[in-house]
Amino acid sequence: MKQERRIVSGMRPTGALHLGNYHGALANWVRMQEEYDCFYFIADWHALTSDYEAPGMIETHVRGMILDWLSVGLSPEKSTLFIQSRIREHAELFLILSMITPVPWLERNPTYKDQIVQMQNKDLSTFGFLGYPVLQAADIIMYKAFGVPVGIDQVPHVEITREIARRFNFLYGEVFPEPQALLTETPKILGLDRRKMSKSYHNAIYLSDPPETIASAVAQMITDPQRARKLDPGDPAVCNVFSFHKI
Amino acid sequence: MKQERRIVSGMRPTGALHLGNYHGALANWVRMQEEYDCFYFIADWHALTSDYEAPGMIETHVRGMILDWLSVGLSPEKSTLFIQSRIREHAELFLILSMITPVPWLERNPTYKDQIVQMQNKDLSTFGFLGYPVLQAADIIMYKAFGVPVGIDQVPHVEITREIARRFNFLYGEVFPEPQALLTETPKILGLDRRKMSKSYHNAIYLSDPPETIASAVAQMITDPQRARKLDPGDPAVCNVFSFHKI
Repeated sequence: MKQERRIVSGMRPTGALHLGNYHGALANWVRMQEEYDCFYFIADWHALTSDYEAPGMIETHVRGMILDWLSVGLSPEKSTLFIQSRIREHAELFLILSMITPVPWLERNPTYKDQIVQMQNKDLSTFGFLGYPVLQAADIIMYKAFGVPVGIDQVPHVEITREIARRFNFLYGEVFPEPQALLTETPKILGLDRRKMSKSYHNAIYLSDPPETIASAVAQMITDPQRARKLDPGDPAVCNVFSFHKI
Repeated sequence: MKQERRIVSGMRPTGALHLGNYHGALANWVRMQEEYDCFYFIADWHALTSDYEAPGMIETHVRGMILDWLSVGLSPEKSTLFIQSRIREHAELFLILSMITPVPWLERNPTYKDQIVQMQNKDLSTFGFLGYPVLQAADIIMYKAFGVPVGIDQVPHVEITREIARRFNFLYGEVFPEPQALLTETPKILGLDRRKMSKSYHNAIYLSDPPETIASAVAQMITDPQRARKLDPGDPAVCNVFSFHKI
């Protein structure tokens, strides 16, 4: 029985989606379609915060992402699927919320300085990157979402959204509900080389890979690295191929 | 002969306009209507940067400002008069420009820390206040203005706009002309009490004051404060009433 409660979640169009994205978020999104009134958006403005120096690929990634979404079962008949930049109110509410958001809230955002350090090949000392939690807050509260499905590492972002919503309501009256973080357990997916599956490690299996590509990638995967001889039985608990098999 | 060159200028709707506003900016705007393709806007988003805690009066001030503008001869037949927030592209371009504007450019803006100190009754440590030069840049360059009429104290703002336009063009190709600061000589207007004419000093003559209000205010003005006796002739050079008379 579908509830009327609304959730909102977005994904940055930075490239083709892989199994890590599927099991980490998309599979859950597909399930939630049956339970909630779901608003899923392609966060192209957010892609611009890190890719502003070469935005040419964003449009292509947006199209690819829509195909990936549809291919795994996100459905425009069950959910509201949209592109962030096409809904102008995101930019307007970002501007309005920027007026009431103290700079220190953004500076103490735990992921802010982390990301600047991690992405040292990009200049992220921009006003827009500092303000991405403000844009995120706008994305979420403008639909009056009751919840946001997130992984544990994104809980601080939802907390900033709640603080901004609270401040707006304090200044102007009760307008926006404070969204809850809906924590989702997701299986850990390792890449072909046993590191975290990631586009930048070139160890990913993409949703859009043709079967032959997947077969040849999987055929080369290391099973149990402890085995002394090729014909020894492997231990499924340490076998990366088996962990895929389980899922 | 009217040129096709476009200028853009805005005014924050923070209250009724007085003679200081008229001689400091509006009189010049009216003259420029004959020379340029003028875009004049009511900067209601900018009013929100400082008045976000009590935005209720902004709408009223917008209406008052339109009346003040029309009363001094700004004409919708000669110029493009508009309200900033009604043109959604201001918010969108603000968001886009925020992605490419380094935070240090904003922090070293000379008026930024000045204003935070001056307006200590307002909490201006917000993300939006830090970013108002970004919004200003969007306001100006989106109309591809060749110039911006400003007083000498606003030249640094135009300089940030030029830097942002230059950075945009560097990243994405020549899109926006760098606007010039059009410096205008304006007569200094003192208030009824010889301090700077200002709403907050309660020493202003408003464009919308009825004749009786003006007559009674002027009748109480100090002429030459050096006169020993009431019937001594005053020195026009130090007489505030005479400086009004000259204008």
